[in-house]
Amino acid sequence: MDDAHTAGMSCPPRRLRVGVIGLGRMGSLHAANLASMPPVELVHVSDEREEVARSLAATLGAACSTDPGEVVSDPRVDAIVIATPTSTHSALISAAASGGKHVFCEKPLGCTPREHRDAIAAANDAGVCLQVGFHRRFDPDWVAARERIAAGELGEVYLFHTTLREREPPSREYIESAGSFFADFTIHDLDIARWLVGEVSEISAFTAGLSDPLFRESDHPDQAIIVVRFACGALGTIDNSRTARYGYECSTEVVGSHATVRIGRNQQRHDVQWLSEAGVRVDHIREFAERYYIAYYSELEGFARAVLASEPVAVSGEDAFEAFRLATDAQRSLELRRPVTHAGIEMEAESVSRAGRCDSA
Amino acid sequence: MDDAHTAGMSCPPRRLRVGVIGLGRMGSLHAANLASMPPVELVHVSDEREEVARSLAATLGAACSTDPGEVVSDPRVDAIVIATPTSTHSALISAAASGGKHVFCEKPLGCTPREHRDAIAAANDAGVCLQVGFHRRFDPDWVAARERIAAGELGEVYLFHTTLREREPPSREYIESAGSFFADFTIHDLDIARWLVGEVSEISAFTAGLSDPLFRESDHPDQAIIVVRFACGALGTIDNSRTARYGYECSTEVVGSHATVRIGRNQQRHDVQWLSEAGVRVDHIREFAERYYIAYYSELEGFARAVLASEPVAVSGEDAFEAFRLATDAQRSLELRRPVTHAGIEMEAESVSRAGRCDSA
Amino acid sequence: MDDAHTAGMSCPPRRLRVGVIGLGRMGSLHAANLASMPPVELVHVSDEREEVARSLAATLGAACSTDPGEVVSDPRVDAIVIATPTSTHSALISAAASGGKHVFCEKPLGCTPREHRDAIAAANDAGVCLQVGFHRRFDPDWVAARERIAAGELGEVYLFHTTLREREPPSREYIESAGSFFADFTIHDLDIARWLVGEVSEISAFTAGLSDPLFRESDHPDQAIIVVRFACGALGTIDNSRTARYGYECSTEVVGSHATVRIGRNQQRHDVQWLSEAGVRVDHIREFAERYYIAYYSELEGFARAVLASEPVAVSGEDAFEAFRLATDAQRSLELRRPVTHAGIEMEAESVSRAGRCDSA
Amino acid sequence: MDDAHTAGMSCPPRRLRVGVIGLGRMGSLHAANLASMPPVELVHVSDEREEVARSLAATLGAACSTDPGEVVSDPRVDAIVIATPTSTHSALISAAASGGKHVFCEKPLGCTPREHRDAIAAANDAGVCLQVGFHRRFDPDWVAARERIAAGELGEVYLFHTTLREREPPSREYIESAGSFFADFTIHDLDIARWLVGEVSEISAFTAGLSDPLFRESDHPDQAIIVVRFACGALGTIDNSRTARYGYECSTEVVGSHATVRIGRNQQRHDVQWLSEAGVRVDHIREFAERYYIAYYSELEGFARAVLASEPVAVSGEDAFEAFRLATDAQRSLELRRPVTHAGIEMEAESVSRAGRCDSA
Repeated sequence: MDDAHTAGMSCPPRRLRVGVIGLGRMGSLHAANLASMPPVELVHVSDEREEVARSLAATLGAACSTDPGEVVSDPRVDAIVIATPTSTHSALISAAASGGKHVFCEKPLGCTPREHRDAIAAANDAGVCLQVGFHRRFDPDWVAARERIAAGELGEVYLFHTTLREREPPSREYIESAGSFFADFTIHDLDIARWLVGEVSEISAFTAGLSDPLFRESDHPDQAIIVVRFACGALGTIDNSRTARYGYECSTEVVGSHATVRIGRNQQRHDVQWLSEAGVRVDHIREFAERYYIAYYSELEGFARAVLASEPVAVSGEDAFEAFRLATDAQRSLELRRPVTHAGIEMEAESVSRAGRCDSA
Repeated sequence: MDDAHTAGMSCPPRRLRVGVIGLGRMGSLHAANLASMPPVELVHVSDEREEVARSLAATLGAACSTDPGEVVSDPRVDAIVIATPTSTHSALISAAASGGKHVFCEKPLGCTPREHRDAIAAANDAGVCLQVGFHRRFDPDWVAARERIAAGELGEVYLFHTTLREREPPSREYIESAGSFFADFTIHDLDIARWLVGEVSEISAFTAGLSDPLFRESDHPDQAIIVVRFACGALGTIDNSRTARYGYECSTEVVGSHATVRIGRNQQRHDVQWLSEAGVRVDHIREFAERYYIAYYSELEGFARAVLASEPVAVSGEDAFEAFRLATDAQRSLELRRPVTHAGIEMEAESVSRAGRCDSA
Repeated sequence: MDDAHTAGMSCPPRRLRVGVIGLGRMGSLHAANLASMPPVELVHVSDEREEVARSLAATLGAACSTDPGEVVSDPRVDAIVIATPTSTHSALISAAASGGKHVFCEKPLGCTPREHRDAIAAANDAGVCLQVGFHRRFDPDWVAARERIAAGELGEVYLFHTTLREREPPSREYIESAGSFFADFTIHDLDIARWLVGEVSEISAFTAGLSDPLFRESDHPDQAIIVVRFACGALGTIDNSRTARYGYECSTEVVGSHATVRIGRNQQRHDVQWLSEAGVRVDHIREFAERYYIAYYSELEGFARAVLASEPVAVSGEDAFEAFRLATDAQRSLELRRPVTHAGIEMEAESVSRAGRCDSA
Repeated sequence: MDDAHTAGMSCPPRRLRVGVIGLGRMGSLHAANLASMPPVELVHVSDEREEVARSLAATLGAACSTDPGEVVSDPRVDAIVIATPTSTHSALISAAASGGKHVFCEKPLGCTPREHRDAIAAANDAGVCLQVGFHRRFDPDWVAARERIAAGELGEVYLFHTTLREREPPSREYIESAGSFFADFTIHDLDIARWLVGEVSEISAFTAGLSDPLFRESDHPDQAIIVVRFACGALGTIDNSRTARYGYECSTEVVGSHATVRIGRNQQRHDVQWLSEAGVRVDHIREFAERYYIAYYSELEGFARAVLASEPVAVSGEDAFEAFRLATDAQRSLELRRPVTHAGIEMEAESVSRAGRCDSA
């Protein structure tokens, strides 16, 4: 090793150069993860708030801009992570794809079926990868469970239950601009249902608005129960709450003919028990970032590795579209006050249901 | 933002340039962590096995060498991580310190009290930081527990129990070269005892060699119980096993006058339960790398941040020496078959106990 | 204490003299409990299978008969426990009440609303106590939870979930003769929903028959999900399975505005963990008798004490009727494939739904 | 069944007629259990406090007396349960045995080895059963664990840990009259060690008195750690505390070559979790009567059945003596400040250690 100091540098591994558009909570988290990810070089971040963009860029050693177009046209950028409001997703995906950039986009891909179809078509036409932010598919707990389900350890599925609750609701602005509760919140559960069990054939939704006048049964519920019937015959429920006080909860149970699996029964902040005259106490996980910090890292690492290896991404645009269509049907069930049969993906027509309208549409 | 593409690069944050000596299991893990750590630039790795060094250097984008001296003399290196066999620690620390490099060293700092004193003196004389690899002090669970103990929530400590078990013993070569069981294995628990409760005033050791002829009660036990009496009056036990079959276990209980805390009661590999006719089952953590991947990252990140900020490191050479001296007294208790009073750190003389002899010394 | 040997006998406490009709699984268990219950004297047991009656009577020191009428007319009997098939309940209650006997009857009180009304009226007219076997109301876990809910610790209820599953289905004979799944199985959960949260205003049922051709979606399901909306606005689900393989499960969660309570998260057969290379394992409760042995004892002890003290019983005939009516509405929802509004108890008319027909009716 | 009302009475099963001497906390509990135990008839209770005896006798339907001799000489009494202070045990056992009564006695059998030997000899000479109140041997959790250990599922034992803690210390009077801490409190753990693992060959004791001036390291500790070495080579610890605030704890771990078992990891008062902003909370078991209500019933039922069937009792006088001798050796270790080799039962000579002296002796 004559030239020890440079020998290792002769063939550095290729890294994916990534730009991030939208530096809200998720975008900032994604940018920080990308900056510490060996197969990635974070090169450009963008937010319409100049100070936010400039500050994060300085911290992470990236360029910055206030105009998303500058990221899209940056020749150094191989791939773009989109974490802007939903109403901008579809157009940004199309622009990025047209520029030959691979895309990782937060869910949902758009506010209407058409926006979904346009985004998927743009990526397909350009031959770029399009991955959607269903992060649970990258969480080690969920992956471990799914592998064993897939290996047949569970047998046939009979029942499915999943719970997604947050400690306290987001801001009024967020709620009023986020579109359908199902498309914004429940969509993660709808994806998990498909991923763990299979396609859904019927959906029934029940909601309530109980904690604050802001919440209403029909429009912006704070509690929801969705019953699904799967094509395989299994039944399932999704339980959502925006007011779970005790913490952030994301847990699932799948009951099968041979075994039952439970994910997330034990969501402690720390593996620490306090015992006193007041009882035995553990702290509960409080926020999604606490629960899923590995998953948020892994979904982007998986995206980068898939792009670098020219392999398919793990969560496709079609997956995003199908979960969105289930959310749309849940909204329709709510309005019709009865179960709604879920049509196969080819049969759907442009929906006019409320779930399809964002405030900006 | 006229020059968006470069604006963020104008003032990149200063990063600590680190070299790693010794690319065994811990050294490789440390190198990979350093390579993905924003405040660090991994610049040089070294191992006497050329292929190992070359391969890891290529993967992580660093220079490599087979001679530790090249890391020590590399002018780009600000700090060195030492993960070689114990018998080399003290001399490497002295060499690095003489070269003005900050040092992070795996425990213990040496095989004898003299080696400890030499290493500590070298770092002090050179004015460099010296941090020791007691990683549990950086684990979020332990930190959370200690903060609340320090805040007085526990009251006075009455009892302390800690358990460290591995699933299966290391290789015969490792066992025969690692020196005293207490200085190699129990030392983490001795440090945790001091960190959570305070100084130890008396120590009594009990061992057994039960699983294999390789293990003997006196020299290389596979089971050990150490009883400590703290200066504050509290009693404690340390439980060690090399043959815990079910997994890697590292857990602690501190019983106080107001409350009791338990760390590590719930060491699941995944937050996944399997229920079947065979019962309710979870997988147990199997290895230290699984349990402490955050702690191993955080101890180096803490080291880098302390060095960059010119602040004291969290685990000092004196901490390492004191834990080593307790290990020495445990060995003496074993030989004398009675409790041994632990002298204050100033009073100790060069020990001739077996614990002070490595095979290489 | 001159006459020590008899002093204590001078004023023995009054004991309730009880007869048991129907010595199947529950009846035998009730009889054994009654025989060891200080405030009770078991005096007479009856089953149409002479050998069963004779054998149990001998073991427990009671008289026996094959004709229920002999228990009803036995002048020594103060109260009768009825554990025969449902189709006989109403007539037996009426006969017992006419004879001035207090009655404890297994659920449901009958196969039709009319049978319920007749039974309740008979007890009212005779001025005897009528208690129904909703045993969970006597289980210490459920009682502890309810007390704290009632004390306001939970705040307003937002969500309710309850699960009742058995390890394997009962015999074909049982299933085909037991009437509606909801009236036979779900009825316990419908009662618990009312007891913990309050009256139900809407009910929607979903079922499946998946494990065996014996089970059909409409008639004899093996899986069921029932969604309830409470008068207070809260939403709830009931999950039932006849094929849970891993054991008997009976658990509940109530999510409130201040806190959430979970009952039965930890249904271990023994407080024993086994750790091995196969993981950490506990045995799950397997049968209702294992789970509720205290509750089955306590409901009868509570009945005896209420009768002896001339106080109201804890679970009234009206409670039984209301749970039955909810089961009837669940069946109607299944047939109509939509939510069914649950009418107040005064408004109901004689139902013709399938839930109202036992095979014997 | 012509004569239904009497048919069942023709051959009532034989019941053991039992008297209870000493109606303190344990004696009252035993009496209440005996009164509700089908194979037992409680016929006589005795306490030097006349009102206590009279009141309990009236409640339970038994005769009463203030003089234990009246129970011993009561011709109706087949067996006597002794729950008086330790200093009276040996003489009462001898008197009962001389009268041909079977004996169940609380631990320990006496204050000295001689008292133990006398009691055992008296029972042997009279040919009556003598069972000792090591109730854990009858608890379903412990029994389930031991059966699997005995079946070889654990393999060879390597480590044993057991914990016995009470929430708060007993009264000063109790502590000052109860004799050695080890003979009064630790004795249950010493018995469990023998029962689960086997004979002990060496014992080392460590104590502290920390919570109150009443407690002293040497005489009346409030914290204790005992290290045992078993004849099979395994190591073990016993942890005792009188000040565990959070509740009553009784738990054990046995680590073996194949598997590890943990008993009592989950000592919830109720299977109820409360989740709120303050965390996830369960209530801990608070007292031995809460934890072991089944065991206290079962040990007496087991005694009654063994006597009625002329079979050996499950816990012999020799078991009690051996646990007492281990307690004596623990006390000697404390005084000598070193490990004490435990001699085989035949080799012991009359001990003069403090453990052998009750205040009344």
